[in-house]
Amino acid sequence: MKHMKWWGWGDEDKEFDLSDKPALWPYIVENLEVDPDAAKISHPPICLENIRLDPPKRNEPFLAEIKSKIYTDHRERVVHSYGKSFRDLLRIRKGQIDRAPDGICYPESEQEVCDILRLAHKHNVVIIPFGGGSNIAGCLEAKGDRMILSMDMRRMDRLLEVDHPSMIARIEAGAMGPALEKKLNDAGMTLGHFPDSFEYSSIGGWVATRSAGMTSDKYGKIEDMVISLRLATPQGQIVTRTVPKSSNGIDVRHLCIGSEGILGVITEVTMQVHPLPAKKECYGYLFPDFESGVAAVYECVTKGVAPSMTRLNDPTKTALSFAFKTKEPFFVQLLGKLVKQYLKAKMDFTKVALLLVGYEGNQKKEAHAIYKKHGAFCLGQRPGRSFQKGKYDFPYIRDFVMDRGAIADVSETSTLWSNLLPLYYKSQKAIREAMIKVGAKPYCACHISHTYRTGASLYFTFGCKGTDLERYLAIKHAAEDSFMQNGGTLSHHHGVGYEHMPWMEQEISSMGMTALKALKQGLDPQGIMNPGKIIP
Amino acid sequence: MKHMKWWGWGDEDKEFDLSDKPALWPYIVENLEVDPDAAKISHPPICLENIRLDPPKRNEPFLAEIKSKIYTDHRERVVHSYGKSFRDLLRIRKGQIDRAPDGICYPESEQEVCDILRLAHKHNVVIIPFGGGSNIAGCLEAKGDRMILSMDMRRMDRLLEVDHPSMIARIEAGAMGPALEKKLNDAGMTLGHFPDSFEYSSIGGWVATRSAGMTSDKYGKIEDMVISLRLATPQGQIVTRTVPKSSNGIDVRHLCIGSEGILGVITEVTMQVHPLPAKKECYGYLFPDFESGVAAVYECVTKGVAPSMTRLNDPTKTALSFAFKTKEPFFVQLLGKLVKQYLKAKMDFTKVALLLVGYEGNQKKEAHAIYKKHGAFCLGQRPGRSFQKGKYDFPYIRDFVMDRGAIADVSETSTLWSNLLPLYYKSQKAIREAMIKVGAKPYCACHISHTYRTGASLYFTFGCKGTDLERYLAIKHAAEDSFMQNGGTLSHHHGVGYEHMPWMEQEISSMGMTALKALKQGLDPQGIMNPGKIIP
Repeated sequence: MKHMKWWGWGDEDKEFDLSDKPALWPYIVENLEVDPDAAKISHPPICLENIRLDPPKRNEPFLAEIKSKIYTDHRERVVHSYGKSFRDLLRIRKGQIDRAPDGICYPESEQEVCDILRLAHKHNVVIIPFGGGSNIAGCLEAKGDRMILSMDMRRMDRLLEVDHPSMIARIEAGAMGPALEKKLNDAGMTLGHFPDSFEYSSIGGWVATRSAGMTSDKYGKIEDMVISLRLATPQGQIVTRTVPKSSNGIDVRHLCIGSEGILGVITEVTMQVHPLPAKKECYGYLFPDFESGVAAVYECVTKGVAPSMTRLNDPTKTALSFAFKTKEPFFVQLLGKLVKQYLKAKMDFTKVALLLVGYEGNQKKEAHAIYKKHGAFCLGQRPGRSFQKGKYDFPYIRDFVMDRGAIADVSETSTLWSNLLPLYYKSQKAIREAMIKVGAKPYCACHISHTYRTGASLYFTFGCKGTDLERYLAIKHAAEDSFMQNGGTLSHHHGVGYEHMPWMEQEISSMGMTALKALKQGLDPQGIMNPGKIIP
Repeated sequence: MKHMKWWGWGDEDKEFDLSDKPALWPYIVENLEVDPDAAKISHPPICLENIRLDPPKRNEPFLAEIKSKIYTDHRERVVHSYGKSFRDLLRIRKGQIDRAPDGICYPESEQEVCDILRLAHKHNVVIIPFGGGSNIAGCLEAKGDRMILSMDMRRMDRLLEVDHPSMIARIEAGAMGPALEKKLNDAGMTLGHFPDSFEYSSIGGWVATRSAGMTSDKYGKIEDMVISLRLATPQGQIVTRTVPKSSNGIDVRHLCIGSEGILGVITEVTMQVHPLPAKKECYGYLFPDFESGVAAVYECVTKGVAPSMTRLNDPTKTALSFAFKTKEPFFVQLLGKLVKQYLKAKMDFTKVALLLVGYEGNQKKEAHAIYKKHGAFCLGQRPGRSFQKGKYDFPYIRDFVMDRGAIADVSETSTLWSNLLPLYYKSQKAIREAMIKVGAKPYCACHISHTYRTGASLYFTFGCKGTDLERYLAIKHAAEDSFMQNGGTLSHHHGVGYEHMPWMEQEISSMGMTALKALKQGLDPQGIMNPGKIIP
């Protein structure tokens, strides 16, 4: 089984390439106060061999009964120790793994998952479900004295069944983004779910964390697409019916969706799929400022003009996007300069906001007219193509700056339209102030990436010089506190894990927590399923 | 507080009027084998005064502490004894009330609800939340030796807040359909939720039972509209955040939606609302048969041609609809006859299927073309207007035939498109056979009233001669068994109560039941909240 880099994002053989993005390094140097020599890696990750792990704990009665192969080699244990949160990477790069899983299993069938869970329940062995390992909310970390088994689901990756007339697909939970989408495409269909982590995440993980993809405006969030599912719990399976809609009491599907492994392991999901769109286009528009961009996007939403993707960058995120620009042929450069000169006469370039819009239908004309009305200049498809080409590359930059002694991370929320700009101003201020407080030059960018009739998401990207956890947490906490105090939610699509757990009671009330604890206690009385996540 | 008839559907002063529907009585006589003399009421309901109730049980410590007024008069207790299921009506008409609630309270604030629940929890008093009292799945019946309090929510009926930019409305749970919709309309908005029970049901009841309205194809089922809610439980309140979407673990909203009072009392909901449509039209189309109608509706769904309402009647339901026709002026009658003659040359009138379609947008042309392609004849807006006029009157007919010694009831489900016609044939056969088995002439009609990309609902209307519960239950059980055995769901929008409880384990699996029991145990450890519903 091929894994992501144990120390960072993406394939081991894939390195973030600065050389074709001449403006990016100067931009980073200026904003994150790092050493201008890009080649100088001041904070390299430790060597794999130098990471010290305690010998794996052995629950002998469990091991005596279990039929599945349990892997215990060093690399497997390291890879399955963490997800890819900033906290995870910071520690693993320094070789800090207090508690690696004691074994890794790769079940190949639902029956095998059920058998392992039954024995784990019997012998009090902790199970941590593992999909692509891309989680950034602390969903995958092991704790405690019991034997811990990481259950890597990636051998259960089959597309089991497609019901064309009903446009549903039955899929094993370990299916990874690209391979699954390819199989669906071959059947003329798409799931329409493209999270930033798409290349390294699984459908089971998406459902377990209530993920959102880039085209959620058209296809919905993952929880909107689940028709039915199967969840293996320590005491047996929850199975829901594959029907369009029901009035069967409390919707048991929704007890499983978002459960982040604390109740059991999702083994299979039946999803709504869609015909492949005949045409996909992505355009860029430049607005004089973020506010006019928000007004335009809002007008589209109120009028039902619904592009498949609407990604509005604030001025700082716009500057970052432009810094990602690759080298272009001379004439394109010249044209770009002319356009820029023309626009500079009309817009203040420190305030402009870049909007990237995906069209899969026929709403281009209406959307275009609304954007123009709000002062936008259409940049054509070039920014869109450039976005599409690099859309999954953003997480790589974090490793790159960490190598050079800087923090870079994200925090996201959603709120109502009536509160969107107020929350944007307040959270940005809170994040910047937290950076200033720790003595760093503040850098905070934001974009809107998911819109609804009622509101939208706000996705903050922040960074500054530093390599210590306390500094990072001060900023991260300022972001979350500000979401909580100002009408946001603790996360729009990254999940809870333990990173967002401190805000759960504020989010869902104390009795909401009581409800979740009751569920956990009822389905997993031994507390073997991914303990320490969602519920304290 | 004005109540529905204690013995049947609707306002006490509203009687079902046969006189303007000349074809209806002969149709009923023929199909339900009743005495042709429509005036002859063979099975009248008992007089209110003749219903004997046990004296109300008194939990003295509870009554000593409670500040809310508790009503115990005869009429109040009778009205709150049952919902409006066939079983409920059959019994109440005979004066059979084994266990009436011992008191009725009408809380006026969330705080009052919380206070009552706290004391009920302390003193072990059963609480049954009561909205409009229209439930037909047995959600409202009291059982057991403890003092039972019916909590009628209708004094909490305020529209608390409208957020126009975000298109949401915060509403107290006791708000009844017509008054609420009127208030929203006055603010230029609509909830878009019009269940058959609209006139006599509350928004709290809709959310608690996962109701569906006639225009769900456009506005969604009620669970799709809930942005946030507040649920008072015996131990405190669950409060969720008002944000568009979240990734905050298991979605606590969905633990409350559909809970039918078994976890607590919904006190407040924040709903997505919509601008009032500029224009509403309703057209009728006649298809040569049900199958061609299904094919046409399916083609609309696949092409995204989405009328706000699509109601396709099978041949028997079509005949029933035509039997509802009111007397018309001479020239209209003449025109109708000419059209009928013209159509009779082209279609077999024993097989025709009437489709009623609501348009609120601009999809009439596309839908019209698809219907025509599948052989439909457009009947214009007359059948639509007639439907709109009488759309909430259907439940009255049940009382009318019960007065005359016949059974009439409904059972509904949903299934995938790939299974729609197979389930339709099998369930219809099962229902008819059950009637034949009890020695009755079988009558079973069906219509599709809610469509999705993945499938649709099937709504069966059945009736036959008879007044005994066993006969009714044999038919009802045949319907539900057939849904369960053939890929349907136990109910698409009527809820579980105790009527559908026997099929719950088949529906959501044994571990699904364990999950619900765990929730119930955790939130309501004394089991005071609406016991005996959903969970055995």
